[in-house]
Amino acid sequence: MTHGRKSAAGEFTVGLVQMACSPMLPRNHETAEAGIRDAVSRGAQVVCLQELFATPYFCQREDDASFDLAEEIPGPLTTRFARLARALDVVLIVPLFERRAAGLYHNSAVVIDASGDLLGIYRKVHVPDDPQFLEKFYFAPGDLGYRVFETRHARIGVLICWDQWYPEAARLTALRGAEAIFYPTAIGWTGDAAPSAEGLAERDAWITVQRGHAIANGVYVAVVNRVGVESSAAGVLRFWGESFVCDPGGRVIARAAGEAPRVLVARCSRATLERQRRAWPFLRDRRIDTYAPITRRYIDAPLQEASPEG
Amino acid sequence: MTHGRKSAAGEFTVGLVQMACSPMLPRNHETAEAGIRDAVSRGAQVVCLQELFATPYFCQREDDASFDLAEEIPGPLTTRFARLARALDVVLIVPLFERRAAGLYHNSAVVIDASGDLLGIYRKVHVPDDPQFLEKFYFAPGDLGYRVFETRHARIGVLICWDQWYPEAARLTALRGAEAIFYPTAIGWTGDAAPSAEGLAERDAWITVQRGHAIANGVYVAVVNRVGVESSAAGVLRFWGESFVCDPGGRVIARAAGEAPRVLVARCSRATLERQRRAWPFLRDRRIDTYAPITRRYIDAPLQEASPEG
Repeated sequence: MTHGRKSAAGEFTVGLVQMACSPMLPRNHETAEAGIRDAVSRGAQVVCLQELFATPYFCQREDDASFDLAEEIPGPLTTRFARLARALDVVLIVPLFERRAAGLYHNSAVVIDASGDLLGIYRKVHVPDDPQFLEKFYFAPGDLGYRVFETRHARIGVLICWDQWYPEAARLTALRGAEAIFYPTAIGWTGDAAPSAEGLAERDAWITVQRGHAIANGVYVAVVNRVGVESSAAGVLRFWGESFVCDPGGRVIARAAGEAPRVLVARCSRATLERQRRAWPFLRDRRIDTYAPITRRYIDAPLQEASPEG
Repeated sequence: MTHGRKSAAGEFTVGLVQMACSPMLPRNHETAEAGIRDAVSRGAQVVCLQELFATPYFCQREDDASFDLAEEIPGPLTTRFARLARALDVVLIVPLFERRAAGLYHNSAVVIDASGDLLGIYRKVHVPDDPQFLEKFYFAPGDLGYRVFETRHARIGVLICWDQWYPEAARLTALRGAEAIFYPTAIGWTGDAAPSAEGLAERDAWITVQRGHAIANGVYVAVVNRVGVESSAAGVLRFWGESFVCDPGGRVIARAAGEAPRVLVARCSRATLERQRRAWPFLRDRRIDTYAPITRRYIDAPLQEASPEG
């Protein structure tokens, strides 16, 4: 077991399983496992599944019955994937609908080390509420903050979907020493028509903002999104896929172009990360004396007044 | 005089003057003025000049004599452009090398209202120090924080060059109500050779991270960069131009492709901004209870420990 984390050398290989989800729930476990095995066979050491991979995206509607889909941690799902992690010597990031207590649920991801040990949980901090993405009904806001997990193969952070629009989340994860930030995701267009120009611009914005996090923080970013069309009484969602990995300079090094299921594998280099941060030493020059007001909802102070604190 | 700022309606038009700078200093004022007049003739109401437009980029070397290039505020430069602003009914963002006191200088930008009044100063908060970009020698860190200026034509924020890599700066400017954030800039490649693939990737990262700020904050972003090749005893810099404006969804709506002088004009719509923020209500869902550690340089806490505060 090599912890290359303290050095500027070494590599680690990440895998992403972009899949369609079935209402036949066991099938999702099987698809995920097949994807993990495929990724590992191609060298992946850290594999991330997509957000809520074990079920259809039930948040299209508010339905009490959907709480039955949640699982405890540990539970059957984490036990199954912990066994697989150990058998394959692979770190797994396994998103799931977490039942924490009666009436208390989270949109979470478990990080399982290659030993099969559960290293910890990340609970989605930023919870959306948009038509057909009614997550505030289901998920309490995450209360574990931003975390980094020292796994056998890399030091990784996990954020989930809506978190991806928030530079604060990426920054706070990077400040904890993440070499790579993973974003399991379920994002798509409403309706099942081919995307409009507007729709494609949305997808491009989604890619751009996450590449921006890689650049601003000098970390690898690995995004895995769902594919497929899912219908509910509320309407239809067409998940746009387009999972990708970019390097600490924001260069896309692997990409699942389009909306088909796909297993992506990408090699990440600590030397690249080191070189990038030496060339563009953004962390050195952060003006931490000026950032305190970022904890405000909005700054309504008199507009023309200078403010030494930011 | 219409302050459309409180409503969701209305438009404003921005102009950017991308120019090469001459060691014949009066020529830079003339080029800038010609660019402003061109932009205004095409409808621009808020025009931004590039960083340190009045001089060659003297920060390639550390030379005490270069402090002679600095000017006080108000001074001849601001007086000249204030007159022009008033004559043309245009808001001007005028970057300059500010002499604040003996031995105390800043990399600043003055915002001049269309009335000719000096509304205020922004002083570059994040100051770089890289080979041939030796700004820490010349500029004290800005101490006015992040500001928004209520001008006749729009509510604008200004950040300068190296600031553009910092999501915190964009966020804090947006939280003060900016409709558009301007980034006067002087960035380029070392040497005068045609850019390598690596060099083009750097330029792409620079565009991407700033589009990311537009997306994450739902604001217009307008970036104006220098062009031209400038030699010094320290070497050569080739400024890459590529000034652009993007909308609150990160879509590039005007672009000065390549390294030629160019005056860009782009129309910005408050309805677009309003629509974007309703569709993607990121400000609503910020988890301000989790952001306090962003004021830390780095977070060295035990890696596996959960932290409720972020």
